[in-house]
Amino acid sequence: MIGIFDSGLGGLSALKEVRRLLPFEDIVYFGDTGRVPYGTRSRETIIKYSLQDMHFLASHNIDAVLVACGTVSSNALVILREKYPSIPIIGVIDAGVRAAAKATRNKIIGIAGTPSTIGSGAFDTGLRAISPDFKIISSACPLFVPLVENGFVSKDEEITRLAAEIHLQPIIEAGADTLILGCTHYPIIAPSIAKVIPNASLINVGAAAAEELRDIITARGMHDTEREGAVKYYVSDEPQGFERIASIFLGEEITDKVTRIDIEKY
Amino acid sequence: MIGIFDSGLGGLSALKEVRRLLPFEDIVYFGDTGRVPYGTRSRETIIKYSLQDMHFLASHNIDAVLVACGTVSSNALVILREKYPSIPIIGVIDAGVRAAAKATRNKIIGIAGTPSTIGSGAFDTGLRAISPDFKIISSACPLFVPLVENGFVSKDEEITRLAAEIHLQPIIEAGADTLILGCTHYPIIAPSIAKVIPNASLINVGAAAAEELRDIITARGMHDTEREGAVKYYVSDEPQGFERIASIFLGEEITDKVTRIDIEKY
Repeated sequence: MIGIFDSGLGGLSALKEVRRLLPFEDIVYFGDTGRVPYGTRSRETIIKYSLQDMHFLASHNIDAVLVACGTVSSNALVILREKYPSIPIIGVIDAGVRAAAKATRNKIIGIAGTPSTIGSGAFDTGLRAISPDFKIISSACPLFVPLVENGFVSKDEEITRLAAEIHLQPIIEAGADTLILGCTHYPIIAPSIAKVIPNASLINVGAAAAEELRDIITARGMHDTEREGAVKYYVSDEPQGFERIASIFLGEEITDKVTRIDIEKY
Repeated sequence: MIGIFDSGLGGLSALKEVRRLLPFEDIVYFGDTGRVPYGTRSRETIIKYSLQDMHFLASHNIDAVLVACGTVSSNALVILREKYPSIPIIGVIDAGVRAAAKATRNKIIGIAGTPSTIGSGAFDTGLRAISPDFKIISSACPLFVPLVENGFVSKDEEITRLAAEIHLQPIIEAGADTLILGCTHYPIIAPSIAKVIPNASLINVGAAAAEELRDIITARGMHDTEREGAVKYYVSDEPQGFERIASIFLGEEITDKVTRIDIEKY
């Protein structure tokens, strides 16, 4: 069984990739919808929340964890691994960095992220650790999450294309051949983003993490191949509206039950 | 001294109107930035938060309160008035309803609001109580708050005009001559909104509440005319970023100090 958690529902785009790559695995997903967003919290609070999220997942029989939240990936991964040394834990930041470093040819890499992710410099730090030669251009894209969550996701949405043009202008001008979609919401509007930066490789960080997870699961022979995997969804706020937003991320209707938990108890 | 509170910083647009109408009054503003938004919370939680906000303001020497939050105005005003019978408490919903009912000629009234305010039907209920003849068209405008908070506020912002066109389409088509800007963020982008619905009266609910407050203060002879009023700002989360967002709402730089409080203690 694979555990996936995020501060909200964006991580469902990573879940979709995990299901595609590991269709026989059971999955437990936790979205901390009652405490979203994490990006504006203090580091101490982020670590406390991350540990509670991990404790909840660990109360299931999990073999590995995908951390679909950029804020947790950059602030708490080391601590989570210390507390759970026997569980492989993959974060979207490191996986996205490695995928981008592999994809670029001209070494000009753009990073699109939420204001807090861009402010943290987490992707930059990871890229510079791989090579000091990368030219990195970061751009905060505060309109992307509301556009996705309100369903402006069709490739023909003029307002989404316009937002992409505004937000990505410095990256386009710099001639980046690779663009990290540094938030699990962004792959949903990748077609609109591709319109304004057509020649760049778009890095889906959730998909990159899902691939690393698949490699680990396969290498360790952990995977179950007897039947199609089941998914259990948990959230920390009212589940109302979950189906609508979840279907945006998953590209299909959710038929599984969603359970609300009190995450403060973990 | 006048108290103003909101779930976040949108109420600063109401504060601006209060300062314009009552320049000699001292003001204490509380923005519950650590627990924003209220709209998605249960009624029980909204009432608990509202009482804490009110207890905090009442710890100052206040003569009257303006509730700049639509969610509190529609869910908790009766309870706040029961707890504080000697303090006049004005809410943005009732004030906005009265101003719209006065402004309309053709009795077709549009309501623009956040998804939770529109979902609550609070403005509709108020308007129908005044006259069953009003034709009311509501429209949830989920992109307006992120556009305002990220500074897309110039009247020439193409993306803001486009968002207004998308969100207000049903109201424009119905021929409304009056549009309630049912969220204290919206007056900031009134010029872009006016472009797509040029013949409608735009009702600034914070300004409507400020006018009712002025009438009460003046009638009771409460006002102080000796010197220009001072403003004290309080928030419940990190004050970082407050200046940037506050200057969007106030149209000027903030020079006063911002203090963080632990609202859970009230």
